[in-house]
Amino acid sequence: MAEFHSKIKTIEWVGNYSKMVDQTLLPYEFKYVNITGGQQMFDAIKNMIVRGAPAIGVAGAHGVVLFAQELEKEHLSRDEFVNKLLDKVDYITTSRPTAVNLMWAVEKQKEVIKNSKSDIKGIIEELKQNAIKLEDEDIAINKKIGDYGAAVVPKGASILTHCNAGALATVGYGTALGVVRSAFANDPTIQVFADETRPRQQGARITTFELTMDGIPTTLITDGMCSYFMKKGMINMVVVGADRIAANGDTANKIGTYTVAIAAKYHNIPFYVAAPLSTIDVNIKTGDEIVIEERSHEEVTHINGKIICAPDVNVINPGFDVTPHNLITGIITEKGILRPDYNKSIADVFKLLK
Amino acid sequence: MAEFHSKIKTIEWVGNYSKMVDQTLLPYEFKYVNITGGQQMFDAIKNMIVRGAPAIGVAGAHGVVLFAQELEKEHLSRDEFVNKLLDKVDYITTSRPTAVNLMWAVEKQKEVIKNSKSDIKGIIEELKQNAIKLEDEDIAINKKIGDYGAAVVPKGASILTHCNAGALATVGYGTALGVVRSAFANDPTIQVFADETRPRQQGARITTFELTMDGIPTTLITDGMCSYFMKKGMINMVVVGADRIAANGDTANKIGTYTVAIAAKYHNIPFYVAAPLSTIDVNIKTGDEIVIEERSHEEVTHINGKIICAPDVNVINPGFDVTPHNLITGIITEKGILRPDYNKSIADVFKLLK
Repeated sequence: MAEFHSKIKTIEWVGNYSKMVDQTLLPYEFKYVNITGGQQMFDAIKNMIVRGAPAIGVAGAHGVVLFAQELEKEHLSRDEFVNKLLDKVDYITTSRPTAVNLMWAVEKQKEVIKNSKSDIKGIIEELKQNAIKLEDEDIAINKKIGDYGAAVVPKGASILTHCNAGALATVGYGTALGVVRSAFANDPTIQVFADETRPRQQGARITTFELTMDGIPTTLITDGMCSYFMKKGMINMVVVGADRIAANGDTANKIGTYTVAIAAKYHNIPFYVAAPLSTIDVNIKTGDEIVIEERSHEEVTHINGKIICAPDVNVINPGFDVTPHNLITGIITEKGILRPDYNKSIADVFKLLK
Repeated sequence: MAEFHSKIKTIEWVGNYSKMVDQTLLPYEFKYVNITGGQQMFDAIKNMIVRGAPAIGVAGAHGVVLFAQELEKEHLSRDEFVNKLLDKVDYITTSRPTAVNLMWAVEKQKEVIKNSKSDIKGIIEELKQNAIKLEDEDIAINKKIGDYGAAVVPKGASILTHCNAGALATVGYGTALGVVRSAFANDPTIQVFADETRPRQQGARITTFELTMDGIPTTLITDGMCSYFMKKGMINMVVVGADRIAANGDTANKIGTYTVAIAAKYHNIPFYVAAPLSTIDVNIKTGDEIVIEERSHEEVTHINGKIICAPDVNVINPGFDVTPHNLITGIITEKGILRPDYNKSIADVFKLLK
């Protein structure tokens, strides 16, 4: 299989600081920002300069190194250093308290600190190496997802995606858009339809940006248009990311995903979810157990700071919806594509991991 | 039945000009604009200062009077006047090619011109009177649609609507929102869910504006959210307007309507179209014959003048989609609710009209 080289590295450890794309500026500016201090990283996560669960995880791991570098200058004893650093590690997790990948990545750094036999300089070096390892692993997992997914992309397909499950949500390749990149490497006639994804417009702002930057033909459509193009035969498959997947395959993803899934079913178009196995929560049986976060009304009522509706209208703004397993053709993971019955296929793949 | 009095008169012939709400300014400003020339009316229709199929129809009828007033000043012979005016009449219909009401209303003016025995002054007077008659008829028709529709609204219902088929899409009461107004007059516990309706956001900008102005409880949602609320049991019926209805019931309406119809079907929620009989084009057998207008890409790529995506992304912007008849529970008209088989029910009601 040909390999695709994306121009985008969302987050990267460079020497003694973290370099990341400032996503609050997209699509107006593509600018890297250097994060050189621990508190600066906390703010970058909190203010969504970096976003996307896998990218946030790596950012948290970088944050631990940054705090460690700062504490080194305080000339503490090794014990004092370790204790103060562990406090900072806990502090970092409070920047985006719902992001499971953040807890997970920061926990990996905690293990490094606790298990290290080195002096302060040595601990810092081990934390750096571990952060870089997490970066590399994220890309490797995405590329596996991409390659498994590419195998089910028809020649010359138009692929619809919703929101952004791309390079800019991960370290640098993407899950749903990883499938697109791997498919495009082998077949440059494929193309993407990107849903705008109101309210936050991640499809318009981020997906169109990263795909056109990588030279992949992309058409922006509004969220209501998907059925129109499906009926016309202009969309051959749907691939989306996931925020949380239940043991039965029910998938929480950005609001609007469920509507796309219903439209795909109506037109007999395959609907795939692309996500690492870490997104599957085998502790929840069905999507009914997934609590949907209600977000700020201003995301619906305002665009670019300007109101778009009557000021006194009521608003409900669920951040996610749950697509039931029976609308999902397959879940593309780094261990292959899981198929229905998901209760069985998910249980099987998790047994293999043990 | 209680009667509802809306605060809004969208378009009105006043003396020798047309007065209309400038809908491009909503929801920021509620301002009337006077249209005093034929070309100005053409542009007002094309640029959606006036919008909504029935309102466009009346605007077209006003446009004919404006052109006639201009031609009067050219001191033509009666024959020259009539010929030039008929050319202008055809020209007006090209301002919004999908709107069948425009063709219909302008055709009514054409009949006035052709049948008139008067001199130029007399023809103009007859055109004015006919335009005013069309206004009055539009409101009367909407109120009948409202009353027929209100009869199928369940007590305390949440009604989802897409785009704006309201007072501001008509002369002053609304088709889909006429149903809402008539239902609300009898049951103040009903409420509306308004789809934002990207790209032009008529749901956010216009529907929330006119409903809150009339004191009807309204919740704004983004287009992708409809299925989420349907699944939660928070939407009890859907009522939308129509731009053109084929003899078999296939209905062209604002882009995104078809997606809502599929979602409604999936959740077994009744999906109604509310439209005057003038919207039904018995000359076309199915929706396949309806040409869908492709609109400016900037409607998708820009909001309030600011770009929201990568500048070099491809865009397709169909203005309408066609909801197939099998997804439509009923078509609410001024002669009652038409039910499937629409080929039969539509043919029957048109037979009665003859």
